[in-house]
Amino acid sequence: MKTNPGRFFEDFRLGETIRHATPRTVTVGDVALYTGLYGPRFAVQSSDAFARAIGYPKSPLDDLLTFHMVFGKTVPDVSLNALANLGYAEGGFRRPVYPGETLSTVSEVIGLKESSNRQTGVVYVRSVGSDERGETVLSYCRWVLVRKRDPEAAIAEEHVPSLAKVVDPQDLAGALPKLSAAAYDTDLAGSPHRFADYAVGEKIDHVDGMTVEEAEHQIATRLFQNTAKVHFDGLAAKDTRFGRRLIYGGHVISLARALSFNGLGNAFALAGINAGRHVAPLFAGDTVYAWSEVLATADVGRDDVGLLRLRTVATKNQSCGAFPDRAGDGYDPAVILDLDYWAFVPK
Amino acid sequence: MKTNPGRFFEDFRLGETIRHATPRTVTVGDVALYTGLYGPRFAVQSSDAFARAIGYPKSPLDDLLTFHMVFGKTVPDVSLNALANLGYAEGGFRRPVYPGETLSTVSEVIGLKESSNRQTGVVYVRSVGSDERGETVLSYCRWVLVRKRDPEAAIAEEHVPSLAKVVDPQDLAGALPKLSAAAYDTDLAGSPHRFADYAVGEKIDHVDGMTVEEAEHQIATRLFQNTAKVHFDGLAAKDTRFGRRLIYGGHVISLARALSFNGLGNAFALAGINAGRHVAPLFAGDTVYAWSEVLATADVGRDDVGLLRLRTVATKNQSCGAFPDRAGDGYDPAVILDLDYWAFVPK
Amino acid sequence: MKTNPGRFFEDFRLGETIRHATPRTVTVGDVALYTGLYGPRFAVQSSDAFARAIGYPKSPLDDLLTFHMVFGKTVPDVSLNALANLGYAEGGFRRPVYPGETLSTVSEVIGLKESSNRQTGVVYVRSVGSDERGETVLSYCRWVLVRKRDPEAAIAEEHVPSLAKVVDPQDLAGALPKLSAAAYDTDLAGSPHRFADYAVGEKIDHVDGMTVEEAEHQIATRLFQNTAKVHFDGLAAKDTRFGRRLIYGGHVISLARALSFNGLGNAFALAGINAGRHVAPLFAGDTVYAWSEVLATADVGRDDVGLLRLRTVATKNQSCGAFPDRAGDGYDPAVILDLDYWAFVPK
Repeated sequence: MKTNPGRFFEDFRLGETIRHATPRTVTVGDVALYTGLYGPRFAVQSSDAFARAIGYPKSPLDDLLTFHMVFGKTVPDVSLNALANLGYAEGGFRRPVYPGETLSTVSEVIGLKESSNRQTGVVYVRSVGSDERGETVLSYCRWVLVRKRDPEAAIAEEHVPSLAKVVDPQDLAGALPKLSAAAYDTDLAGSPHRFADYAVGEKIDHVDGMTVEEAEHQIATRLFQNTAKVHFDGLAAKDTRFGRRLIYGGHVISLARALSFNGLGNAFALAGINAGRHVAPLFAGDTVYAWSEVLATADVGRDDVGLLRLRTVATKNQSCGAFPDRAGDGYDPAVILDLDYWAFVPK
Repeated sequence: MKTNPGRFFEDFRLGETIRHATPRTVTVGDVALYTGLYGPRFAVQSSDAFARAIGYPKSPLDDLLTFHMVFGKTVPDVSLNALANLGYAEGGFRRPVYPGETLSTVSEVIGLKESSNRQTGVVYVRSVGSDERGETVLSYCRWVLVRKRDPEAAIAEEHVPSLAKVVDPQDLAGALPKLSAAAYDTDLAGSPHRFADYAVGEKIDHVDGMTVEEAEHQIATRLFQNTAKVHFDGLAAKDTRFGRRLIYGGHVISLARALSFNGLGNAFALAGINAGRHVAPLFAGDTVYAWSEVLATADVGRDDVGLLRLRTVATKNQSCGAFPDRAGDGYDPAVILDLDYWAFVPK
Repeated sequence: MKTNPGRFFEDFRLGETIRHATPRTVTVGDVALYTGLYGPRFAVQSSDAFARAIGYPKSPLDDLLTFHMVFGKTVPDVSLNALANLGYAEGGFRRPVYPGETLSTVSEVIGLKESSNRQTGVVYVRSVGSDERGETVLSYCRWVLVRKRDPEAAIAEEHVPSLAKVVDPQDLAGALPKLSAAAYDTDLAGSPHRFADYAVGEKIDHVDGMTVEEAEHQIATRLFQNTAKVHFDGLAAKDTRFGRRLIYGGHVISLARALSFNGLGNAFALAGINAGRHVAPLFAGDTVYAWSEVLATADVGRDDVGLLRLRTVATKNQSCGAFPDRAGDGYDPAVILDLDYWAFVPK
């Protein structure tokens, strides 16, 4: 058998390490396409001159471009037979990544839990993205619901890992080089609001909406070398419960992040991912909106930047003026993403 | 209020200067995407080897890519609440821009004229695009019809600027480095026609047509970091008079310019924009055609290149064999763009 | 007449040489867009670090990106008035191409054969793609059915060239630098199968499918500066027998090649094209699948790589589990491409 059938739940072993294909050199070409697909406007990632003025050697990649590149590699080994991407935790961006660097990913299976009906099971992995010298640039945990090939197959060892609800901001403090807050030009950045201007409990409607096209999410998902067939095969999709191609959940994260510029224009770098949930699927033709809430602020002993703990909620086909949110046991039906993360903001 | 509501007419002050976000380093990635979106085939911009052979250090950007990058930055400050982009004048490309350079834009409010119904007003700005050393690479005037927040609001000072009908070609003559017309290989350039081969009054049907898709204009407009929501939010668009997303006018300019290669293949660099008008809107699914007329020729004392004053008219859903044009007080209903500009052609 | 009407059959002369416009510097921007449009995952082309580890100076271009760039240039001169692209033969990739190189194409007319009804004729060309020093990087023959302007026009000289059915693998052996098979990391490459693991007669269903959007094939075809209007003008297409835009045949080749990664993940470089036929047209909305057969293996005296002769068949709207193939005098109606080629695989 020369083709990859993907792993089924009973194929995973607790503690095993998977070296994923395909290593990827990220270039200014990827950056341009990322900009065209999502429209981010953070000055640090857009302008080498701006980045240099505050202390970077040049513009780093958008952190989510790094995330998608690291994530994409895990799909053929982890989630080709997944029914759902259930959650993220303990995400940490360790340092800026620059065009020209090569990213690889290794995952460790940190948890396995068979479902009570024995048809499926939850696989927990910690995925670590590294540069060509093997230095970590990003690590995160995710758990996915994976089909069993054979419901009767026995599972060698099960374990549900205990994952932190929130990443300790002190552990993220070193992810950026030493920067100059004074050299950070808020006119050019597009927002006057600095770290001290954000208050816990503050909610921001990001106002703008983006309608998504099939060509856009397909180009994005291929760029990230994410091979999950649900995103590409419209013919096979006709026989699924949705009847159509499903958009990669990371596409929603990147859209929400780009929309969040309108209100969070200085939250220029992601530091950690505390929790993330794809609440409902997105399809081509839907329009995405987003709002955010400041959950916490953290002064991590740097005089240049502080950390905001943000929760960004994305919706489809409903603007966010009324802040659609959790409702009863679930969510407002418009909500598609609930993401809890740390971001750096200049002081 | 952390989000940008955009300026309304009464928020502008005559003579004020606006430093726009977001500075942007333009790369070969942007160039590739520009090629994929519009299909330009000018040899100077396509081949470093061709460019070097005639005297450039390497291929410069397509001038319209520079234009869109400079223009995009003005949208959040100037035209977020605009009802219409009324015109362009006094445009000048000052020097070639190369991949790796960082572009920023500053606009000066040079005119304000309230409408008689006091619901809206026309804002005139001169926008100047600069490189990271502050050197001008492009300047142009445009005027837009902007909503008032409060029809009763008083306007401090009004003024209608006097703008040149045509840019003096002598003022544009220095925009290119010294080139070698002898080294300009017309086989590789795809057209045998040089400066002396074009005659005033000559009309050229550019023959080819391009059907535009939603994904294409959205990717382009995001690449230029142009945030006007009319281009992206298909849900909100349902409640507008058009009922659908409106395509960025600059997308039409780039399509027309790329189509004009067939007939103007050696008009390889834009020098100035005399006048421009978006006559009618374009929507996804429409097919764009173009024709051009030679309005004037100018020998500006260079032995390598001369200037053609061209008028390029773009249409939708009607080919240009019959040169659809102004008609009565308006235009043939197929016309969507009327652009009057100077372009360099080798001698 | 300033515009290019394209050549008609009677305009070609046996033995004539055509220097095509537009030379093109290929960049990492083109590579990124190619990845986004097709999703190739071959490690050599994705990672500079992987490429260097086995002996390349850095990642070369995907060979099909080179092919499309070389091919696109021939369209305005050879196939603007073509009714059908009939076949390919004697294709050879002479050496890897790297970002930053400039490609040009020259074609020689090697055959002309008028159709019996005198309305059309078959033009055979050998096209040679070169770098900026004039060194060949790719050559191939193709033949196209071209309309006559005037059915009565006499044809000066006709000739049907004799083309090899298969490229001699020994002639292709030198196309790659000396590589290290030991340093080729099959985990990172995504497939454990090396040269010796493939057997003649083996068939591989590549499993995955890709649904194609109008925006995708248009962006691709413009990126390659291929100007055939059948791909872009949806309005004119309404009056054709298909009633819609036709997708560039090369788009199918690139999709099939990217899909073939699943089963041929180590067939990382193309060496030669023996034969190719676009059996049926592809339209937006169709889903492409592919399968391959190993026709031959060739040990060409290198200790690092061997050659597989592969036949890849692409279909539309039918998965390839049943290996749809030739049927009777023609093909299974789902088949759209039949491509016979040599590819390098590490030992």
